Amino acid sequence: MIFEKVKSEIIAHNSYFVGSGNQAAVIDPRRDIDVYLELEEKYNVKITHIFETHRNEDYVIGSLELSNTLGAEIYHGDKLDFSYGNGVKDGDKFEVGMLELEILETPGHTDESISITLKDKESSNEVYMVFTGDALFAGDVGRTDFGDKERMSGNLYDSIFNKLLPLGDGVIVCPAHGKGSLCGGAIGDLEFTTIGYEKKTNAALQVKNKKEFIEQRSKIKLEMPPYFKKMEILNKNGPPILHSLPHLKQLTIGELKEYQKKEAQIVDARMPTAFSGGHIPNSISIWRKGLPLFVGWMLNYEDPIIFITDLNRQLDEIVRYCIRLGYDNLLGVLAGGFSTWYKGAQEIGHVNTWTVHDLKKKYDESIFILDVREENKWEQEGHIEDAHNIWVGDLKQRLAEVPKDKHIVVYCDSGYKTSIAASILKMKGYEKVTNMLGGFMAWKKAGYPIEKE
Amino acid sequence: MIFEKVKSEIIAHNSYFVGSGNQAAVIDPRRDIDVYLELEEKYNVKITHIFETHRNEDYVIGSLELSNTLGAEIYHGDKLDFSYGNGVKDGDKFEVGMLELEILETPGHTDESISITLKDKESSNEVYMVFTGDALFAGDVGRTDFGDKERMSGNLYDSIFNKLLPLGDGVIVCPAHGKGSLCGGAIGDLEFTTIGYEKKTNAALQVKNKKEFIEQRSKIKLEMPPYFKKMEILNKNGPPILHSLPHLKQLTIGELKEYQKKEAQIVDARMPTAFSGGHIPNSISIWRKGLPLFVGWMLNYEDPIIFITDLNRQLDEIVRYCIRLGYDNLLGVLAGGFSTWYKGAQEIGHVNTWTVHDLKKKYDESIFILDVREENKWEQEGHIEDAHNIWVGDLKQRLAEVPKDKHIVVYCDSGYKTSIAASILKMKGYEKVTNMLGGFMAWKKAGYPIEKE
Amino acid sequence: MIFEKVKSEIIAHNSYFVGSGNQAAVIDPRRDIDVYLELEEKYNVKITHIFETHRNEDYVIGSLELSNTLGAEIYHGDKLDFSYGNGVKDGDKFEVGMLELEILETPGHTDESISITLKDKESSNEVYMVFTGDALFAGDVGRTDFGDKERMSGNLYDSIFNKLLPLGDGVIVCPAHGKGSLCGGAIGDLEFTTIGYEKKTNAALQVKNKKEFIEQRSKIKLEMPPYFKKMEILNKNGPPILHSLPHLKQLTIGELKEYQKKEAQIVDARMPTAFSGGHIPNSISIWRKGLPLFVGWMLNYEDPIIFITDLNRQLDEIVRYCIRLGYDNLLGVLAGGFSTWYKGAQEIGHVNTWTVHDLKKKYDESIFILDVREENKWEQEGHIEDAHNIWVGDLKQRLAEVPKDKHIVVYCDSGYKTSIAASILKMKGYEKVTNMLGGFMAWKKAGYPIEKE
Amino acid sequence: MIFEKVKSEIIAHNSYFVGSGNQAAVIDPRRDIDVYLELEEKYNVKITHIFETHRNEDYVIGSLELSNTLGAEIYHGDKLDFSYGNGVKDGDKFEVGMLELEILETPGHTDESISITLKDKESSNEVYMVFTGDALFAGDVGRTDFGDKERMSGNLYDSIFNKLLPLGDGVIVCPAHGKGSLCGGAIGDLEFTTIGYEKKTNAALQVKNKKEFIEQRSKIKLEMPPYFKKMEILNKNGPPILHSLPHLKQLTIGELKEYQKKEAQIVDARMPTAFSGGHIPNSISIWRKGLPLFVGWMLNYEDPIIFITDLNRQLDEIVRYCIRLGYDNLLGVLAGGFSTWYKGAQEIGHVNTWTVHDLKKKYDESIFILDVREENKWEQEGHIEDAHNIWVGDLKQRLAEVPKDKHIVVYCDSGYKTSIAASILKMKGYEKVTNMLGGFMAWKKAGYPIEKE
Repeated sequence: MIFEKVKSEIIAHNSYFVGSGNQAAVIDPRRDIDVYLELEEKYNVKITHIFETHRNEDYVIGSLELSNTLGAEIYHGDKLDFSYGNGVKDGDKFEVGMLELEILETPGHTDESISITLKDKESSNEVYMVFTGDALFAGDVGRTDFGDKERMSGNLYDSIFNKLLPLGDGVIVCPAHGKGSLCGGAIGDLEFTTIGYEKKTNAALQVKNKKEFIEQRSKIKLEMPPYFKKMEILNKNGPPILHSLPHLKQLTIGELKEYQKKEAQIVDARMPTAFSGGHIPNSISIWRKGLPLFVGWMLNYEDPIIFITDLNRQLDEIVRYCIRLGYDNLLGVLAGGFSTWYKGAQEIGHVNTWTVHDLKKKYDESIFILDVREENKWEQEGHIEDAHNIWVGDLKQRLAEVPKDKHIVVYCDSGYKTSIAASILKMKGYEKVTNMLGGFMAWKKAGYPIEKE
Repeated sequence: MIFEKVKSEIIAHNSYFVGSGNQAAVIDPRRDIDVYLELEEKYNVKITHIFETHRNEDYVIGSLELSNTLGAEIYHGDKLDFSYGNGVKDGDKFEVGMLELEILETPGHTDESISITLKDKESSNEVYMVFTGDALFAGDVGRTDFGDKERMSGNLYDSIFNKLLPLGDGVIVCPAHGKGSLCGGAIGDLEFTTIGYEKKTNAALQVKNKKEFIEQRSKIKLEMPPYFKKMEILNKNGPPILHSLPHLKQLTIGELKEYQKKEAQIVDARMPTAFSGGHIPNSISIWRKGLPLFVGWMLNYEDPIIFITDLNRQLDEIVRYCIRLGYDNLLGVLAGGFSTWYKGAQEIGHVNTWTVHDLKKKYDESIFILDVREENKWEQEGHIEDAHNIWVGDLKQRLAEVPKDKHIVVYCDSGYKTSIAASILKMKGYEKVTNMLGGFMAWKKAGYPIEKE
Repeated sequence: MIFEKVKSEIIAHNSYFVGSGNQAAVIDPRRDIDVYLELEEKYNVKITHIFETHRNEDYVIGSLELSNTLGAEIYHGDKLDFSYGNGVKDGDKFEVGMLELEILETPGHTDESISITLKDKESSNEVYMVFTGDALFAGDVGRTDFGDKERMSGNLYDSIFNKLLPLGDGVIVCPAHGKGSLCGGAIGDLEFTTIGYEKKTNAALQVKNKKEFIEQRSKIKLEMPPYFKKMEILNKNGPPILHSLPHLKQLTIGELKEYQKKEAQIVDARMPTAFSGGHIPNSISIWRKGLPLFVGWMLNYEDPIIFITDLNRQLDEIVRYCIRLGYDNLLGVLAGGFSTWYKGAQEIGHVNTWTVHDLKKKYDESIFILDVREENKWEQEGHIEDAHNIWVGDLKQRLAEVPKDKHIVVYCDSGYKTSIAASILKMKGYEKVTNMLGGFMAWKKAGYPIEKE
Repeated sequence: MIFEKVKSEIIAHNSYFVGSGNQAAVIDPRRDIDVYLELEEKYNVKITHIFETHRNEDYVIGSLELSNTLGAEIYHGDKLDFSYGNGVKDGDKFEVGMLELEILETPGHTDESISITLKDKESSNEVYMVFTGDALFAGDVGRTDFGDKERMSGNLYDSIFNKLLPLGDGVIVCPAHGKGSLCGGAIGDLEFTTIGYEKKTNAALQVKNKKEFIEQRSKIKLEMPPYFKKMEILNKNGPPILHSLPHLKQLTIGELKEYQKKEAQIVDARMPTAFSGGHIPNSISIWRKGLPLFVGWMLNYEDPIIFITDLNRQLDEIVRYCIRLGYDNLLGVLAGGFSTWYKGAQEIGHVNTWTVHDLKKKYDESIFILDVREENKWEQEGHIEDAHNIWVGDLKQRLAEVPKDKHIVVYCDSGYKTSIAASILKMKGYEKVTNMLGGFMAWKKAGYPIEKE
């Protein structure tokens, strides 16, 4: 059989391409579908089936885009009223060459969530793999807070303990997400796992009974980015067809300033140190690899988006990151990159950088220490004394808590999210803002004291 | 200044990308425009101008496709009533960074043909280059048989002798076509040339006066493929926007046979030897690199097109070849390539292959020797005794000249066009058909006698 | 953790790249090591350990090449006296970031064979994966015929039943080979497997006891290509360092003929149909994708090797296929590909092609049907009546069995190995040779009678 | 004919690949020769000749590397006693397919300098192109200061006026360098030029007579980087063979610090803003695209070199830049890039950044303005009032001129060379160092006053 895992980095989304003979199926395709067309050509097979394990809320699914190009059928759980595709239910079977794919309804993360078992009839009649969507991950289970938490958690318990685990220890588990996804807080970074390995090692499964499982799930607090709402609607109704990746226009300083007046969103995709060394005033700092994680928190879907990079290389990567989250309002880049700006004698903004040693040495009451990590990290890992915690995603809403007249020293895990926060503070008129590079990670490594409630 | 020549192989079409500062222009873009977008990104410039030297008849121009993505303006001669773009005339000037592009009307090939001179003001005020479209090539001049030959030839004489040559010997000439193009019969394969070099070496320019030039032009016989008509219409009205390259579907034997019943055009893109060794009955043989030259003679624009290759590798190349000629009716490939066919126990057709020595030895009156080269090659280079000349492009129309009851030995220059001809004969029911591999080239090399009228 | 499977196609060799933090290890590297250097760069890690599961006999291992570039240490079983690297034994442990790799001696395939278990301490203290080398495959076990079969088979039983299977059903199994490898006859094409899945489905494991296992193993007949001897020596002593892939020189017809006189080996890497349609006399036909499987049977390590292809594209692929098997005696290609040959008025050879229907219809006693499949296929799947079986690898040695005065119709599974056989017959002076395209596969599909002893 | 220009960016070196039939020649190959091997394969030709227009001093020539792989012969002027290759002299002719290459001795830049004319006999018997090495460039002529300036300049005059210009206006000129090269100060950025265009526009050719030419040449002051000496020796004796590109090892913080103790050279290849925002103390800042221009000024050939980048992407580019200049002492990179450093709680250095407006506003006597542009720019373009000029390449030698107790504000053309200078100052213990971003370019754009002697 043919088996390929297609990973979308950082949003940590997994899709799967499975085939046999001259036929193939795709599970949970992403929106930039070229990778599947290349696999089709590489293996000389025809994609005939597209499965969605559930209506996703963390990225835009590519089923319609793929179906539009290939004519393949789309299948998803029938417990939600999708505007496209075909509903399936427990026990439905599909043949793809010698493969047999069978639907297993596994609600919990969402009501219409399905898992799909795979048998390779060429080698045996036993279940070989199971695509678990957002029900079971390596090291975690799906979040259950998109509806009534208790009901959802109960359903998930039943799905996992009564449907997935009984498949047998030797069955390979292919989940829809890897480490870093917002769909589960403790997902590990194993490429694959098995029912047996999860039974032994997955913390969420070490419970006495359903009740304990529900209780534990109820305690979990996970961030809920604002863009999730948009994803839900797009994935229920079917997102717009792209046909090809949007093209980023090359802009002059003059054009950029015009667009800026018209509310364009300027995203500086350089590294935190580069942003510190100089940046376009009123731009937001989101480093390149952080785009998949933070555009959904920081940008809106209406105003055009302009990117600032050093050399405008590999823009294609940036475009993919954004359209996977439904951001089709991409406009362009500053031609020539950031240096065009200062060569053009424009004003620049700065953010100071400190090491952890600098903070340790210089801390006094003129300083306000702002911790922008997730609330659960603040609680579980502890924090620097006197720091004030506001999750970077909430900073714009909670600015009242940050004094305007102090020197704001910001930290996060290592300095990246801090740059986002610092750029927000600068935009909002804070004058003295410092990024403590290395963040909590370096603070710990330096052996400095940690406070824990 | 930035200068890139973008060549479309085999149709031997040249487009040019020129830029300065943060700006660029494209001259005669092709329809698969990704290459220009990549250059834009590579050089960090914005394409602001698109020029068409004339309404082409040998390929579909990509101006609208490019303009649709970028918003750049299109310019072409104002002596034709285009459905899109802006008309320009003698003396119109355009600034692209420090470059100055100036229009020079140079009718002859077509009435609205323009050339464009380029000055790089950064280095001097002298003309540096001239984009001559189909007026002046390396080693030849544009064909003048798309209208009244005498009038067109006279115009071309004026354009070349009174406008282009006076630019000065040191001016670099950038023509719209290279060797192999159907837009001139004697185009050389020099990448670039100069006014000075052409004055000395271009045979078409070695004339006493306008009269002699017109006389010589009138004698030229060039093939006129049927698809030229289609190109003229598309390029006058603006072709359909593609957005992205069409995708070739993977087909099973059963699907292929179904489509074949419905008049699908099966194109075998393998090499002549492979076609000889076995092929799908009623497929037409056009080797991969011959597609740009012969799909326009052999295929229609309505019935779906299916390709047969060995391994279905680099299908993207095949798709580009076809859409450049306006063939958007591309359907798919046989999944698995040709071997799928014979593994499926299907019937196959054969074409014999002979060396030139075989023909020399075995020739007798049971054999009909068919020469499928261009008529002017037959005349100028001579031919094998007793051979009968029908240009491969005319074969379908002139089958009555080929006896059904003889063994047909076909040859061309080297054996490729012969494979096309052989496939036509097989489709039309000829039973014994042989490809004389090596063709006239090998025949000469072997020192065998040549007949010349 | 970082996990990448690096597959060498067709020889179906798997190597693995595993990492954690800023460190990585490679298991069974291949000789063209660029892929590992790219992974090192991609993941920003340093390869510190190289493991060899055993002294391979079917390909040249790249450990020394990789170590030479990186300085990483090499480890292999201490039961063989390798000329390089470090011996390891049961229970030896290695840390690679948070990974713990532990040696498990698993003799059977060879005496010094080891397996390596992997724990990812970041997720748990349980065994997550096991690299089983040639002990346990998906669907089969390692061959035990490189030494005393009974002893080896007994050892293998112990290794599998007492060491590997007890690791637990949920452990992921990463074997050194996939389907198509000569290291096991029944290896399946699953990308990964688990202890649990193999226990249920692997035919070799469905035995009552050690005795039955040994008996079954003893019955297995697997081909033993002549090049295995060379591999054993190279892999024990360490192969020559390449530094970079050899370059194939472009040769003229004249040069090729000179080399041919000096015993150069001419390999026609085109498809069987192309070889049939015309080829260079005295060349051996091995289609491109068949090179990894058949150069080891057909070519020697001394005389220079010249390849014939259609367009000399992707020569890099051909070079890799060969150096993985220790063929460093690569010389060049015919510049311009096969058409250069016939354009040069050279003599060509032919092989007829028939469909299965042709054989069915035309068979009479003037025909000798030669079946060149593996002996066990002949036995297990049956054959065409009156056919004579000689495995293509043995054909040169057993030519006396093939009558010179008959029309030899050759078949194999589908027509590829047949082309090799046909080329050997032509070289040896057989005049009428036919490749029955589609082979036994098409014969069955056509529903024609099959004979079985 | 086949014609490809192979450009090595930034050192602005041009090599040429010309071919005809199945043969090709390379003129002035670079040391990373893969590009020529790919062209050989692309065009299906055999490289038989390698020409060197002169013994270069600004990069390591790849002739031996290429010849070592291919066996092609090397040719260069016979007025220098090279340790390898064959001497040629005026009038020597070489056939490459239908091309005729003829040697024209054109001393001046060096004594053994040659030019090579090219005729394409397929199109005519006229000279089509001339490869002028470092004799004649687009917009400039070769520098004549590597020996006795007057004698060399006189020779160059004769070479250009008596040998090159008489070839005719229409001849295409292919020089060995483009804009940015240190081999001529005023080379323009035209991809190609012609004798005619140069006669009209090249400032160096607008002289009354030889005497004036010599006088003008004598006035030219060009930088002479220290690495030129090394290049001269390598290119006379033949540089070491590489076989393949060196591999950059991944290093931990600990390893980097160990190497730093042992005099390793740490090169920070990030952009100036990133370096400003934070860097490893005692590292030298040379932005990625500046490496080809400045490693030769800043690094030695003995101590190992370690690179710091953001993400360690495209390291291959960095390696090529360095080995082209003979830097084979490349060691590695910090695994994970610069962020590894601050996550590891290490100390960091800073450089302030100012806009031109900041300097204008804040300038007082506590500030020392350091201009690190080339001396001739300082003279020709003017400078900021009170600034002090030291060419960045001389800064280490002239530190005594820079006061230790002042705030040093450094500027160059735009801010890049400034970062190099700033990093040197920081290494030498200067505490307050500021990079005036945008440099003189922005200063002018802002309309601020310029001083000119």
